[in-house]
Amino acid sequence: MFTLLHRQKGSDARTGRLVTAHGAVDTPAFVVVATRATVKAVEPQALVDIGVQIAISNSYHLHLRPGGETVASLGGLHGFSGWRGPTMTDSGGFQVFSLGAGKEHGVGKVASIFPGEQPAANHYRQGKSLVNLTEKGASFRSIIDGSEHFFSPESVIELQRQLGSDIALVLDECTSPLHDYEYTKTAMERTHRWAQRSLDTFAGRVRSTGQPDPNPGQVLFGIVQGGSYEDLRKHSARVIGKMEFAGFAIGGSLGRSKEDMHHVLDWTIPLLPAGKPKHLLGIGEIEDIFAGVRRGIDTFDCAAATRIARNGTVFLQEAPRHRINLRNARFRDDPRPIDERCDCFTCKHHSRAYLSHLCRAGEFSFYRLATLHNLRFLVRLMEGIRTAIEGDALDKMESEWLANVANGP
Amino acid sequence: MFTLLHRQKGSDARTGRLVTAHGAVDTPAFVVVATRATVKAVEPQALVDIGVQIAISNSYHLHLRPGGETVASLGGLHGFSGWRGPTMTDSGGFQVFSLGAGKEHGVGKVASIFPGEQPAANHYRQGKSLVNLTEKGASFRSIIDGSEHFFSPESVIELQRQLGSDIALVLDECTSPLHDYEYTKTAMERTHRWAQRSLDTFAGRVRSTGQPDPNPGQVLFGIVQGGSYEDLRKHSARVIGKMEFAGFAIGGSLGRSKEDMHHVLDWTIPLLPAGKPKHLLGIGEIEDIFAGVRRGIDTFDCAAATRIARNGTVFLQEAPRHRINLRNARFRDDPRPIDERCDCFTCKHHSRAYLSHLCRAGEFSFYRLATLHNLRFLVRLMEGIRTAIEGDALDKMESEWLANVANGP
Repeated sequence: MFTLLHRQKGSDARTGRLVTAHGAVDTPAFVVVATRATVKAVEPQALVDIGVQIAISNSYHLHLRPGGETVASLGGLHGFSGWRGPTMTDSGGFQVFSLGAGKEHGVGKVASIFPGEQPAANHYRQGKSLVNLTEKGASFRSIIDGSEHFFSPESVIELQRQLGSDIALVLDECTSPLHDYEYTKTAMERTHRWAQRSLDTFAGRVRSTGQPDPNPGQVLFGIVQGGSYEDLRKHSARVIGKMEFAGFAIGGSLGRSKEDMHHVLDWTIPLLPAGKPKHLLGIGEIEDIFAGVRRGIDTFDCAAATRIARNGTVFLQEAPRHRINLRNARFRDDPRPIDERCDCFTCKHHSRAYLSHLCRAGEFSFYRLATLHNLRFLVRLMEGIRTAIEGDALDKMESEWLANVANGP
Repeated sequence: MFTLLHRQKGSDARTGRLVTAHGAVDTPAFVVVATRATVKAVEPQALVDIGVQIAISNSYHLHLRPGGETVASLGGLHGFSGWRGPTMTDSGGFQVFSLGAGKEHGVGKVASIFPGEQPAANHYRQGKSLVNLTEKGASFRSIIDGSEHFFSPESVIELQRQLGSDIALVLDECTSPLHDYEYTKTAMERTHRWAQRSLDTFAGRVRSTGQPDPNPGQVLFGIVQGGSYEDLRKHSARVIGKMEFAGFAIGGSLGRSKEDMHHVLDWTIPLLPAGKPKHLLGIGEIEDIFAGVRRGIDTFDCAAATRIARNGTVFLQEAPRHRINLRNARFRDDPRPIDERCDCFTCKHHSRAYLSHLCRAGEFSFYRLATLHNLRFLVRLMEGIRTAIEGDALDKMESEWLANVANGP
């Protein structure tokens, strides 16, 4: 299902083709985040026009509402949402983490990864854990109605069968950057046992419920854990890498800085099977994409591009840090599009001045227009990266992008 | 600019063609509400696909943000928003009313006109007037930043020149249903003097600012006032109807019930020039559209269709009161579109179950999808009404629609 096409000279960067039951994905690729079976503010059909190849939804959120059975009865995520292309589902491990240790510690994946914004502060308000974690699984209360729920490696496989994603992920325990070595090790070892139980369950996928199987072509990815500890990450990569997964994700805490994250990638990727696809969970800043691609990551997902769009921040290659905020007063009368070279709907039709007005006025139409731009920007970035790798020119592209960081818009 | 095409036998209902500087409008027509130069949750380009003919924006809101000069510098509303079709602008009189007497009285245009919802309760919280009204005009404070502003009949003509709408409306004083006869009469007489000042100013439209005139083809409509008092309404229709306006709007308080509103229409429309277009301001419930068309109204605008959409309420011909709320539990697993005979984007692509999920989850993508449906529904309703009038069959159509009110979806 995954074919390596070209490895850049003197680098681990590679292009590939990931074939799923709902179409192929050219890699490296950005996976758009459609947590609750929609990208926020954008209907599924518009993603096709942008050139989006693959979307990731969240098992935890869809379990709570509308529930796996409802999605299955409507033809799985593809039938339910109308997005007909390749789809991943995250297992819910990160959400269990968010309700548990993440909530107690008040932190996300990497505390400092998004300078200038609190890392998903709305998701991880500090407080008491809402999760009871045992070897069997995790019980937790619904954030919607307080009802009790239980996730096990097995139940999450069944849930994702109902969702019918093309790529399912195993249930893992995400540790926080503030967990110590001992706890991180204990959690990692449990995650490894859960991974095997997940594989066993997936191999004999239960169809005894009498419900239709919305996607018999579904495959399962394993997740490497181990926090920011070198020996744990290497051990996890070896253990998970030997299991019969169709692909692998790097999950959990990636340390306290971008350097920590680079170390995690350097420790783990070489120990995973080279011929299988590798996904970096929840990371998608532009410089992180370059750093990940250079180390052999094939796919990325990150909610930041859509979240910052709704706050007025749009991507631009030349701007400082590749972004401008349309709330800035200098855009009020600016007749230019966000990016004169961009081919997205927003740039083809609207000025910075109009977008600035919609943003200041809090108009919902702004959320969609800004999100369309940011997603198209990432799609084009990934196209550029694939072309650069094919031409053994990724270093050149990366240095051009980094050189641009200093220039104004 | 307005051509009467057909008058239904035994009725004042008529079809017509209203030609503006940005295209023609077949009447009777629904004018979609784009208060701040966007329909809420829908980008301007999508309106073309729905078949929307004309949009109305609000001078008051656009004056406060981004300001008339900014809009003029970007090519007027058409250049600014990207909506290239016919456009009206309301003068701001209703907003002055909302901040003044409407706020003191805690009411809107017609207290009981939208059963089941407080009439625009969010706009008209009871409290002290924020407006100081004199013969010269109205001074008020910005709801955005508290800054002082002044609207006069003259300044509002200049503001709408900057906005470049195809149809501008005079500044009027909207009285509340709770105003007594004496006050309503005083306000009406002032509105008549303001109407003449507006016409005089419009005739010699000021271009001395050196700013470009975004729409030299703009025309001006007068507004009939007089509350729900028969002699005042008839007097106002005679006075305003004699002035050289390109068309007329029925504004202000329409009484305390739908019957009161029908009386206001019956008193005023026969006294206005038959050959000129007539707009009913802020009214657009389905039964009100039939009632207005039957009495000779050519265009309607109303924010309810888009506002209720965002709350989950979508139109359906057969449903009780022509609407269902997608939050209702019975739609959670319903694989059908909102309306199997509807040709809108939403009905072509999405199930009630998916829309119900998006609505419950508070996803922004829902707001757009529901709004697209409701607007397309009204566009088709108006098409049907025009066809019915041409075939002298409006009574038949209306009774079919009213008969459907009793049926379930």
